[in-house]
Amino acid sequence: MSDRQLHLNVNLLHSGVYASAWRLPESDPRACFDVGHYVRVAEIAERGKLDAIFLADTPAITDRIDYRSFMSMEPTIVLASVAAATSHIGLIATASTTYNEPYNIARRFATLDLASGGRAGWNAVTTADASASRNFGLSNVLEHKARYERAKEFAEVVHALWDSWEDDAFVGDKSSARFVDTSKVHPIAHRGAHYAVAGPLNVPRSPQGRPVTVQAGGSHDGRDLAAAQAEAVFTLAQTIEEGVAYARDLRARAATYGRAGDSIVILPGLATVIGSTEAEARRRQDELWELVPIEYSLARLAGTLQVDPAILELDKPLPDPLPLPANANHTMFQGTVNLARRGNLTVRQLLRALGGGVGHRIIVGTPEQIANDIEAWFKAGAADGFNLMPDVLPTGLEVFVDNVVPILQRRDLFRTDYAGTTLREHFGLPRPISHFARRTEAAATA
Amino acid sequence: MSDRQLHLNVNLLHSGVYASAWRLPESDPRACFDVGHYVRVAEIAERGKLDAIFLADTPAITDRIDYRSFMSMEPTIVLASVAAATSHIGLIATASTTYNEPYNIARRFATLDLASGGRAGWNAVTTADASASRNFGLSNVLEHKARYERAKEFAEVVHALWDSWEDDAFVGDKSSARFVDTSKVHPIAHRGAHYAVAGPLNVPRSPQGRPVTVQAGGSHDGRDLAAAQAEAVFTLAQTIEEGVAYARDLRARAATYGRAGDSIVILPGLATVIGSTEAEARRRQDELWELVPIEYSLARLAGTLQVDPAILELDKPLPDPLPLPANANHTMFQGTVNLARRGNLTVRQLLRALGGGVGHRIIVGTPEQIANDIEAWFKAGAADGFNLMPDVLPTGLEVFVDNVVPILQRRDLFRTDYAGTTLREHFGLPRPISHFARRTEAAATA
Repeated sequence: MSDRQLHLNVNLLHSGVYASAWRLPESDPRACFDVGHYVRVAEIAERGKLDAIFLADTPAITDRIDYRSFMSMEPTIVLASVAAATSHIGLIATASTTYNEPYNIARRFATLDLASGGRAGWNAVTTADASASRNFGLSNVLEHKARYERAKEFAEVVHALWDSWEDDAFVGDKSSARFVDTSKVHPIAHRGAHYAVAGPLNVPRSPQGRPVTVQAGGSHDGRDLAAAQAEAVFTLAQTIEEGVAYARDLRARAATYGRAGDSIVILPGLATVIGSTEAEARRRQDELWELVPIEYSLARLAGTLQVDPAILELDKPLPDPLPLPANANHTMFQGTVNLARRGNLTVRQLLRALGGGVGHRIIVGTPEQIANDIEAWFKAGAADGFNLMPDVLPTGLEVFVDNVVPILQRRDLFRTDYAGTTLREHFGLPRPISHFARRTEAAATA
Repeated sequence: MSDRQLHLNVNLLHSGVYASAWRLPESDPRACFDVGHYVRVAEIAERGKLDAIFLADTPAITDRIDYRSFMSMEPTIVLASVAAATSHIGLIATASTTYNEPYNIARRFATLDLASGGRAGWNAVTTADASASRNFGLSNVLEHKARYERAKEFAEVVHALWDSWEDDAFVGDKSSARFVDTSKVHPIAHRGAHYAVAGPLNVPRSPQGRPVTVQAGGSHDGRDLAAAQAEAVFTLAQTIEEGVAYARDLRARAATYGRAGDSIVILPGLATVIGSTEAEARRRQDELWELVPIEYSLARLAGTLQVDPAILELDKPLPDPLPLPANANHTMFQGTVNLARRGNLTVRQLLRALGGGVGHRIIVGTPEQIANDIEAWFKAGAADGFNLMPDVLPTGLEVFVDNVVPILQRRDLFRTDYAGTTLREHFGLPRPISHFARRTEAAATA
């Protein structure tokens, strides 16, 4: 295998990325409320030697659930169940920095890391949706910049808590009655603009040292947060050029924080519709598209753009100009507008290209074509891998694992077995040393 | 079996209720950080047909971890792992109303209820410890009354969110493209003194309708909260008289909220040390006690009483008077002081009676003696069952399940198999109707 490794997550979007996925004959409509569904998908991902499963999250109903299945169950609970049924697959859950306390998040993910033998990842998001803010006592969502300032401090606190136990703080010596060497368990004494947290965490240092920190924002502030603190990013890019430009920008920003550029794994979203011939794949895409009610697609697009659906005319292009709303999800907004402008698409064509309202790139073709595309992006430096979004779950992932993965393996791009057992090992990320331990070491050397 | 059922939970206190439990030859000192340990205990509890496992929690280090194992891993993550390995045992996790948001708690427990097929219970606590407050941006703990006011409103919001989906809101009809009947999914529009929560929850109504609400406070405000909202209580009582008085008081308070007195399952804590003869049980207690460092016991007692350890003289009684500190855990404080005064104990004798700092009743004897004690309390109306606290885990529970449970079964006091699959069914609690559905029904009848 070549030095540089391809990384593949599956974004476990309930019944699949297509809004109509739950309506296929093969689909169980209740899947999004059934932890067994998540376990089955994770088992398939593990059979395919994928790096991780990834669960998106918003603490609110943000989609048109009259029409489609949605992210419902709380992700860390789901992943704890999945951990019990699997042994290698990484487990990444989204949790909001705006609607949680850093102590609780640090603790929950450290526990998941212990329970899974070092497979936990935390996708830190700031949660743009106004519907979420109304579930947490706020009548308006926090302004974009304020959310990211809090997020940065939140992640600092979480990382400090994960570092608060040195690796060898636990003693457990029965004869001397010494359980923990408390000189190696440190208060963090954090006092910042938004948080005051004494620490230490009440969970010892977990197998990965720190669970992997993931980030998914494409805005200026989002990229800055990723550059400062993320070890993997879930991005949106529609073309190789966009992907390359994003990677260059992020690695340059990381350098300003004194971080090596390749210390961040860049994973654009990639929706897949696979057939044994290209014609079969197109037919599958047509079927999936025809099962998406047009009212749903319009409502979803209007939601992304934060406009009144009435101003969207099906056979005309998007209104121009279309200003960025104050509290939009920047990544989704810009991805959608770029897609429309680049192809000069009508609203109807845009909806179809979005596949029912996604915004991430969709590729439709044979396993060979999918593998070629992945290889091209990877070799161009537009991606270190992908956050896969199969059209339908679990069937779309099963087809990928059984048909695309073997091609990538034959081309020496993807592992044929796991080399390690932790998510850090899958991603090729170092296990960090507690900054308290580093300080102790430095003092001993001086 | 007689009509009235005995209920038995095991309080899964890491290595066991004795501070020295981790030091026994049979114990794995790392057990409190190992989800496999929790799974093993749950499997034994399920083999014994117990109602539930119960996990205590505080989001801080509150014990002297230099000397003993402690509650560390986040309980809902642990229980999600346990759920995957078991099929019947109830799963009760503690979560603080002071350091969480109601939307997050409603969602996490609804998810656990879905993932476990209806076995989730939420033990709502207000968290008295000052060390916890300092992990959440507060320099001082909220005053007792304020904590309970918030807790009451918090539980109201959680219950409303659990009710926000009617049972039949999910449709999942592939042909009509109708996923959810949103006329049966209700905003809760809560605006109270402490919380403003729009809802609805983004999780459908879970198998139990609502996860079971448990409460564990013995103070005036704690009892009032339990009377208003709890379906099971974990209490502290050292004598049958105390137990009977508590039950009478709680049932009278419940009546003022329009609730039937027997709608609350009362479960005092009961620590057990079991031997095949009484002498053997006493020897085991001696061994356990001798392995508890006296510095630990003193520090723990001083913590419960919130006094300087230096004022506690080993061979004298507790100082008198001993005022209730403003932010003490009332139940633990009062239980400890009562125990000392009743027996006119010296500090040394008190420490031994506490078994290293617990406060709950300890019974030492043969399986027959333990069964007799349980039967006497149950028949006197001092308890509907017990929250068992085995001396050492898992071995102390194993002995209970293999030796005490069969006696209780032969006496027709305890189930020989589960009659249902949910925690509500084990506890004999009705499955509540969503108050939104009740309103719809009432409107249809009018």
